[in-house]
Amino acid sequence: MLLSLKMSYKAAMGEDYKADCPPGNPAPGNNSGLGATEAEEDFVDPWTVQTSSAKGIDYDKLIVRFGSSKIDKELVNRIERAIGQKPHRFLRRGIFFSHRDMNQILDAYENKKPFYLYTGRGPSSEAMHVGHLIPFIFTKWLQDVFNVPLVIQMTDDEKYLWKDLTLDQAYGYAVENAKDIIACGFDINKTFIFSDLDYMGASPGFYKNVVKIQKHVTFNQVKGIFGFTDSDSIGKISFPAIQAAPSFSNSFPQIFGDKTDVQCLIPCAIDQDPYFRMTRDVAPRIGYPKPALLHSTFFPALQGAQTKMSASDPNSSIFLTDTAKQIKTKVNKHAFSGGRDTVEEHREFGGNCDVDVSFMYLTFFLEDDDRLEQIRKDYTSGAMLTGELKKILIEVLQPLIAEHQARRKEVTDEIVKEFMTPRKLSYDFQ
Amino acid sequence: MLLSLKMSYKAAMGEDYKADCPPGNPAPGNNSGLGATEAEEDFVDPWTVQTSSAKGIDYDKLIVRFGSSKIDKELVNRIERAIGQKPHRFLRRGIFFSHRDMNQILDAYENKKPFYLYTGRGPSSEAMHVGHLIPFIFTKWLQDVFNVPLVIQMTDDEKYLWKDLTLDQAYGYAVENAKDIIACGFDINKTFIFSDLDYMGASPGFYKNVVKIQKHVTFNQVKGIFGFTDSDSIGKISFPAIQAAPSFSNSFPQIFGDKTDVQCLIPCAIDQDPYFRMTRDVAPRIGYPKPALLHSTFFPALQGAQTKMSASDPNSSIFLTDTAKQIKTKVNKHAFSGGRDTVEEHREFGGNCDVDVSFMYLTFFLEDDDRLEQIRKDYTSGAMLTGELKKILIEVLQPLIAEHQARRKEVTDEIVKEFMTPRKLSYDFQ
Repeated sequence: MLLSLKMSYKAAMGEDYKADCPPGNPAPGNNSGLGATEAEEDFVDPWTVQTSSAKGIDYDKLIVRFGSSKIDKELVNRIERAIGQKPHRFLRRGIFFSHRDMNQILDAYENKKPFYLYTGRGPSSEAMHVGHLIPFIFTKWLQDVFNVPLVIQMTDDEKYLWKDLTLDQAYGYAVENAKDIIACGFDINKTFIFSDLDYMGASPGFYKNVVKIQKHVTFNQVKGIFGFTDSDSIGKISFPAIQAAPSFSNSFPQIFGDKTDVQCLIPCAIDQDPYFRMTRDVAPRIGYPKPALLHSTFFPALQGAQTKMSASDPNSSIFLTDTAKQIKTKVNKHAFSGGRDTVEEHREFGGNCDVDVSFMYLTFFLEDDDRLEQIRKDYTSGAMLTGELKKILIEVLQPLIAEHQARRKEVTDEIVKEFMTPRKLSYDFQ
Repeated sequence: MLLSLKMSYKAAMGEDYKADCPPGNPAPGNNSGLGATEAEEDFVDPWTVQTSSAKGIDYDKLIVRFGSSKIDKELVNRIERAIGQKPHRFLRRGIFFSHRDMNQILDAYENKKPFYLYTGRGPSSEAMHVGHLIPFIFTKWLQDVFNVPLVIQMTDDEKYLWKDLTLDQAYGYAVENAKDIIACGFDINKTFIFSDLDYMGASPGFYKNVVKIQKHVTFNQVKGIFGFTDSDSIGKISFPAIQAAPSFSNSFPQIFGDKTDVQCLIPCAIDQDPYFRMTRDVAPRIGYPKPALLHSTFFPALQGAQTKMSASDPNSSIFLTDTAKQIKTKVNKHAFSGGRDTVEEHREFGGNCDVDVSFMYLTFFLEDDDRLEQIRKDYTSGAMLTGELKKILIEVLQPLIAEHQARRKEVTDEIVKEFMTPRKLSYDFQ
C-alpha cells in the first residue's frame, strides 16, 4: 500500500516543496495537478479534518472558502518591522498561513494601544502530542515579542459534552494539559489559564457575555456553521458562545476591568475558525470589537498528512511523554517517507519532501533555515537518504521532548493553581 | 360585547362554582357542556396561556394532558395530618390543584428526611401585580409549616433572551422584584434569592449542573416540549437547563455541600410544568432525584379569566404599587362581573360566580371559608348585588396591598443583598 501511495505521487514530483515558503509562495499544502483534484474533497471543521492528499489540506483553497486572508510576505515583513525581531519560523515558513485583521492589531501595537492574546485547548485526554504544542509555542512567542496579556481557555465543558467523560475527568484533563501548556514557558504574570467548568462559576463577566452572544445567534446559524442537527444536545448547540466569549475583554474583569474595547488576537489552528467567524459576526451587534486571528496549518500524523493523529494510537504521533528510545523507534518505523523504494532509485530520482513526514516535522521544529533548505535540496536530489533524514529529525525531537519533560516536572500544583486563579495580570496598557 | 359574553354563559349557569372545592370536587375551571367544548382550545406553555372560556382554563383536562396528579381531598388531608395545621386556603380551594410526587415529599418529611423548596420569577418589568404573589404567598406558607430552606430563582437571563431588554435592565428588574418577594415575609435565615446573571458567575456547582442537563437534552426534545424553532436563539434553546438546575441540591454547595440527594419541591403556576417535566426526565439519567411539584391555577385578569394580564396595561390587574383609590376604581370599573344587566334581573335570576372576577379574586384572598361560601350563595341567589360584592373585594384588597407596600418599604438594599448573597442557610437536616 505504501508503495502504491508513493507511486501515485510521482506525477506531482516535479513541483518542489519550499521550506521557506510564505513570502509570496503558495502555502505548503498547495499544489496543482493531482493534489489539487484530490484537495476538492478536503473537509475542515472543529471536529473533522479530512483530506485524501498526502501533502495535506489545500490551504490556499481553505483561505478562499473561509474568507480569511493569506499571511503574505508583506505582512510578515510588517510584523518584523513592528517587533524589530526576526519573525518566528512558523511565520517564515507559512505554518501560520492565514489571518483576519492582523493589520489592525499591528496598527494598535504601533499606536501603543492595548490588545491581548487568546488561545485554547480541548482537554479530551491526558495525552498531548507535539502537534498540540504548535499554537502554544507560537502564542508564547507572540506574548514575548508583543509583551501582552494572554488568556488560555481549557474547554473541559466541551469535552464533557462531546465525549464519554464525566465532569471530573474532563476537569482533570484540563489541569493535566495545563501543565504541558505552562511548560511551554508562558509568563505567569501575564497569563491566565482557565477551565470553563471552573471559571464560569467564578467570574461575573464571563456568563454575561455568553448570554449576550447566545441571544444573537440562532440555531439556523450554528446549524450552518457547525453542522449541528436536531438530535444534538442543547449543550453542544449553545457551546459555540462559550468558545466565543473570551474574545471580548470584559469576560475577564479581573484583568481588563469593565473595558469592552481591548482587541483580541487569537492564534489557533484553522479548524477553529468557524467559532470565530461566528464571533466576528456577532461582535459588532453586541458592541464589541471583532477578534483578529492567526491561523495555523495542521500538524501531520506520522503516517502522513492525509491520516489522523489519534490520542488512542500511540504510533500516530510523538507524545510529550515519549522516551528518547520511543521517539527513535516511532520516527524510524512509522514516519511516512517520501523516499524511493531502493537506495539505487533514491540516489537516481531523489525523495519527495512534499509528502515526507520527517521533513514536514523538521519544518515545524528545526530553527535553522539554511540547514532546512540544505536538507530539502539533498533529500530531493537523492544525496540524502531517508535514514539520514530521519536521524536528523530524531536528533531534533529527542532534546525538544526531553527539555519539555524537564520543564513540565518543574510545574508544581501551586504553579498550576496560580496560573488558573482569576487575578490581575501585569501589562503596560495605559 | 359584555352583554353578549354574559348571555353566552347563561347555558352554563345551572352549575354552581364551589368556593371550597378541592375535596373530591372538580377544580374551579372545570365544567361540562359549553365550557368543556371551548376548553378544547386551551393552550398552556410558559409563554402563552390561552382559553376562550370566561371560567378560565379547564384544569382537569390539563392534568390529563400534562400527566400530573390531582391534589385531591385525601392528599390535602394527609398534608393537614403531617403539619398539624389547617391547610392553606390555596389548598382548601383547589388553587394549588395539581402535583407530582407530593406523597414522596410527605414521606420524607414524616421520616425526618430533608427536602427544600424552589420557586422563581421571570423579572420582565418592575411592575408586579397581585397575581404574581400567588406562588410566593404559598411558598412562604410551605416554608413556615415545613421549616425548610428555600431557593428563589430570578431568571433575568431568560428575560434578557426573550425580551428587548439590556442585561442591566433585566438584572435591575430582578433586584426590584426581589424586594416584592421579600415583602411576602420569607425567613432570611432560610431563603436564598438569586439572579441567574449573578449566581452563574458565583457558584462552582450551578454551571456544572447546567452543563450536565444540557448534555442530556436534545434540540428535538426542547422543540417538542417548548415549541422552539430553528430561528430561535441558541440562548433560548439552552435556557431550559438553567431553570432546571436549581431542582438539584448540589447547585447550591453553600447550602447543601456536595449532597446530591436532597429532594426538591417546586411550587409554581402550571404553565411552568414543561420545564420540570424535562427536568424530571433528565434527573435519573444524571443520578439525581426528580423534583416534586405543586401546581397552581392562573390568576385571572380583571377583564375575565379568558383575557391576559399585562404589565403594560395597568387596568388588567391590581398592581403592588396601586393606591387604595386606584384599587377601588379598577375593581369597580374593570372587574368583569357575573351579575345581570339590571338589578331586577339580578334579584330574580342571581349572579354567576363562575365567571365573576371579583368573586374569583376573593377565593384567592379572603381567608374566611364560611364568609366566602355565604357570599357565593348570596351572589348566586341574587341577594347580593355586584356593587356589594365589589365592595367586599375592595375592602380585602386595600389593606392587603397597603400592608404589602409597608413591608416592602422596610426592605432595605442591605436586606436584599443579604437574601441574594450565596451563604449557608440554617435548617435542621441531620
